[in-house]
Amino acid sequence: MTREHSLSQIASKSEDFDRWYVDVVRRAELADYTPVRGCMVIRPYGYALWERTRDALDAMIKRTGHENMYFPLLIPESYLAKEAEHVEGFAPEVAWVTHGGDKELDERLAIRPTSETIICSMYADWIHSWRDLPVLINQWVNVCRWEKRTRLFLRTTEFLWQEGHTFHATDEEAAAEVDTMLECYRELAEDWLAMPVIKGRKTESERFAGARYTLSIEAMMSDGWALQAGTSHHLAQNFTTAYGIKYTDRTNTEQHPFQTSWGLSTRIIGGLIMAHGDEAGLIIPPRVAPIQVAVVPIARSNDDDAARLVEDACARLEREAGPDVRLRVDRREGLRPGDKFAHWELRGVPLRITVGARDLGDGQVTVVRRVDGGQTLEPLEGLGARLPDMLAAAQVATRARAQRLLDERSVDVSSLDELIAAFAERAVFASGPFCNLDECEAAVKAAVHAATVRNLRADRTADGAPCIACGRPAEDVALIARAY
Amino acid sequence: MTREHSLSQIASKSEDFDRWYVDVVRRAELADYTPVRGCMVIRPYGYALWERTRDALDAMIKRTGHENMYFPLLIPESYLAKEAEHVEGFAPEVAWVTHGGDKELDERLAIRPTSETIICSMYADWIHSWRDLPVLINQWVNVCRWEKRTRLFLRTTEFLWQEGHTFHATDEEAAAEVDTMLECYRELAEDWLAMPVIKGRKTESERFAGARYTLSIEAMMSDGWALQAGTSHHLAQNFTTAYGIKYTDRTNTEQHPFQTSWGLSTRIIGGLIMAHGDEAGLIIPPRVAPIQVAVVPIARSNDDDAARLVEDACARLEREAGPDVRLRVDRREGLRPGDKFAHWELRGVPLRITVGARDLGDGQVTVVRRVDGGQTLEPLEGLGARLPDMLAAAQVATRARAQRLLDERSVDVSSLDELIAAFAERAVFASGPFCNLDECEAAVKAAVHAATVRNLRADRTADGAPCIACGRPAEDVALIARAY
Repeated sequence: MTREHSLSQIASKSEDFDRWYVDVVRRAELADYTPVRGCMVIRPYGYALWERTRDALDAMIKRTGHENMYFPLLIPESYLAKEAEHVEGFAPEVAWVTHGGDKELDERLAIRPTSETIICSMYADWIHSWRDLPVLINQWVNVCRWEKRTRLFLRTTEFLWQEGHTFHATDEEAAAEVDTMLECYRELAEDWLAMPVIKGRKTESERFAGARYTLSIEAMMSDGWALQAGTSHHLAQNFTTAYGIKYTDRTNTEQHPFQTSWGLSTRIIGGLIMAHGDEAGLIIPPRVAPIQVAVVPIARSNDDDAARLVEDACARLEREAGPDVRLRVDRREGLRPGDKFAHWELRGVPLRITVGARDLGDGQVTVVRRVDGGQTLEPLEGLGARLPDMLAAAQVATRARAQRLLDERSVDVSSLDELIAAFAERAVFASGPFCNLDECEAAVKAAVHAATVRNLRADRTADGAPCIACGRPAEDVALIARAY
Repeated sequence: MTREHSLSQIASKSEDFDRWYVDVVRRAELADYTPVRGCMVIRPYGYALWERTRDALDAMIKRTGHENMYFPLLIPESYLAKEAEHVEGFAPEVAWVTHGGDKELDERLAIRPTSETIICSMYADWIHSWRDLPVLINQWVNVCRWEKRTRLFLRTTEFLWQEGHTFHATDEEAAAEVDTMLECYRELAEDWLAMPVIKGRKTESERFAGARYTLSIEAMMSDGWALQAGTSHHLAQNFTTAYGIKYTDRTNTEQHPFQTSWGLSTRIIGGLIMAHGDEAGLIIPPRVAPIQVAVVPIARSNDDDAARLVEDACARLEREAGPDVRLRVDRREGLRPGDKFAHWELRGVPLRITVGARDLGDGQVTVVRRVDGGQTLEPLEGLGARLPDMLAAAQVATRARAQRLLDERSVDVSSLDELIAAFAERAVFASGPFCNLDECEAAVKAAVHAATVRNLRADRTADGAPCIACGRPAEDVALIARAY
């Protein structure tokens, strides 16, 4: 696990982004392929990143009044089938359990691709009165979708996620919930993962199977492609009608509640990697970094006094950084400092401190910031206490760098010709008035290879400007991009 | 979800312990049955209890140097089959995936019953040198075992657990790891869940399939039956040989590492319920209680001044309890105080504070301790700040009560006749010298209906005293009990 890989072992990001991605994921030991088709193993460094991301979102989910619970992994086929559009959408990618021990089952069981159906089945028994509403729950679980083409973190047969499910007395309350949770996803993406995102509504063809509408956040990867990083669905009464969930309202009338669901998965770790990384490997925002500060001692082995001085300084940093800073002193033997630098760069550790005897003579150490390579000499005195501020600044710099990328690669277009021109040299986020007709969506796809309408932006309105495809007056502004 | 259930809706614990258990689990909304055979849904109150238990153990797992990661849910049949004894032990209870989408799979996939096999397959690629050891990892996941008879929390087709897996250079180091993790389980059971446990080694017939030996902790339920609450296995080189895991040691010789695994599951929540509950319902130890203090305001609806006084006192308690005390003011309308008392008693909340206008006239409120019904008048002044000490005392009292039960129901026996006599009136934990032969184990089973050797106690030695079954000199002291 400690064998070193030199930089040459990851592909050039500018030359082969896809290979760079896989190389970084594997060489930084975030995750790896397994013998199980389309399934990955998440290794300790990658899982620690997911744990911090999960904990941040879990706190938001609880802060907004939701409680965690746990529903079964296996869903009887008949339960899955009750909402017609839903089963049609998910059946092709379901993994089926047909045998328990030696016996063939009477009814086959789906490994959950998502849990609306089993949750509705249970809440049909638990919801009776307006007093039982709202129901605000969430679960952190694994799900399976039998994907044809898979990619570490981004698209795997099994993945980890949270799925929130809520029931409300009114349509408006459900709509507000859909917005609230999308805002939590934005907060997670922007304030924790340092990835600016565009909020909006998915088109009809891209909404969740069984939903009235789906909202998404879309992040820009550093190759200009988009990644859908979280979705929030208004399910209206589609499932509650199909599953017979009813409550008696204050006027003693039976009603079907309104429902929402929303999910965010390990996919977002893939987004984090592609949004921030560079030629040397990962760049991890400090707030979610498993290791925030790597300290590399440098001392010649033939100089005991210098070695002691260096070790004392490292120990002092460890002590003074305190429990809130995740600092690791790299005391591994038999590795050159350059190898250690490359090791921590590949892993995207936000700050590296080099502790050498010469600088220590002046009471100083060298601090290198991963996100921009900025290098400063810092007095050792009080450095431990200054680390939280330095990490906060690195967080801001990481976010600002991603924002600059998004700004540079965002283009407004008012016609298909302009759209084609915008994509002529590189992938961009193009925004233009859009009438939301199926044929106009098809025209966009046909105009630019692999580009699609990602969402109808929540922050923009077309105010009747002509649709870029058909020229008819449009209300929405579409975000158009190539997407993972 | 807020409808009230009166005490009469749970069976009498002394008359029908089994029904009492199911009633409490369902009425306190910890968990419930689902339409999926043998699978349960863990409801928010039960899941919050599991989250606190999990977080406490997760901190211990990390403190002892382990890292979390995530391996796939699905394991190809051929991987499961490589360790002969292991596959024989688990194959009868495996759920098999045979189809992905519309296609039949070339090889069927097991839903993990435990993950030694897939983990060994991966580490065969990752372990090469003595520098790669030890490997100390853990995962928190769901597993499936196709059980014939199921019971909420105690035995379900799907359950949640952690499974730790480690690889070591030496046999001794692996043995020390097995002990270390059993000690973590003891700490969790005793210091957090307030359940005293007996450590020991499982007999040959009860060890994990593929292990050299298995250690367990056994807790006493309040009906005198035992619950195996956690196990830690020394796998020797059985799996590492079968899966071809090799490393080069310091002398450049190829070796198979020594391996351990250890697991603790949602089953322990069932133990917590059965160890502490009483006729009124759950008794939850404060350290893991989702709600530690329930405040019930009492004011006549026709007295606005009194109502304001009571509400002010409740708000003050909320404020002064601070973020470290999990306090809930029960402001639900339309419920009588007696219903609210029963509600929080059923849910086992450690402290209940009754805030009434009359007591408040003297600056006082009534505090009732769930574990022993102890009732005191307390000055409202400074009560918030005193709650942590009162909760700590309730934790101690809960543990002491369980310890008394264990002491009262523990019996030393020196023969099968004494064993039979010990079980004549009630279930006990019987301890006696035991030679560990299969036929003596069978003799114990035959002597007392449903009793088995739970483990060979780690805290006792027979020193050559005669085995209770055959009379030959014994080294071990067996713990004999009826078990869930």
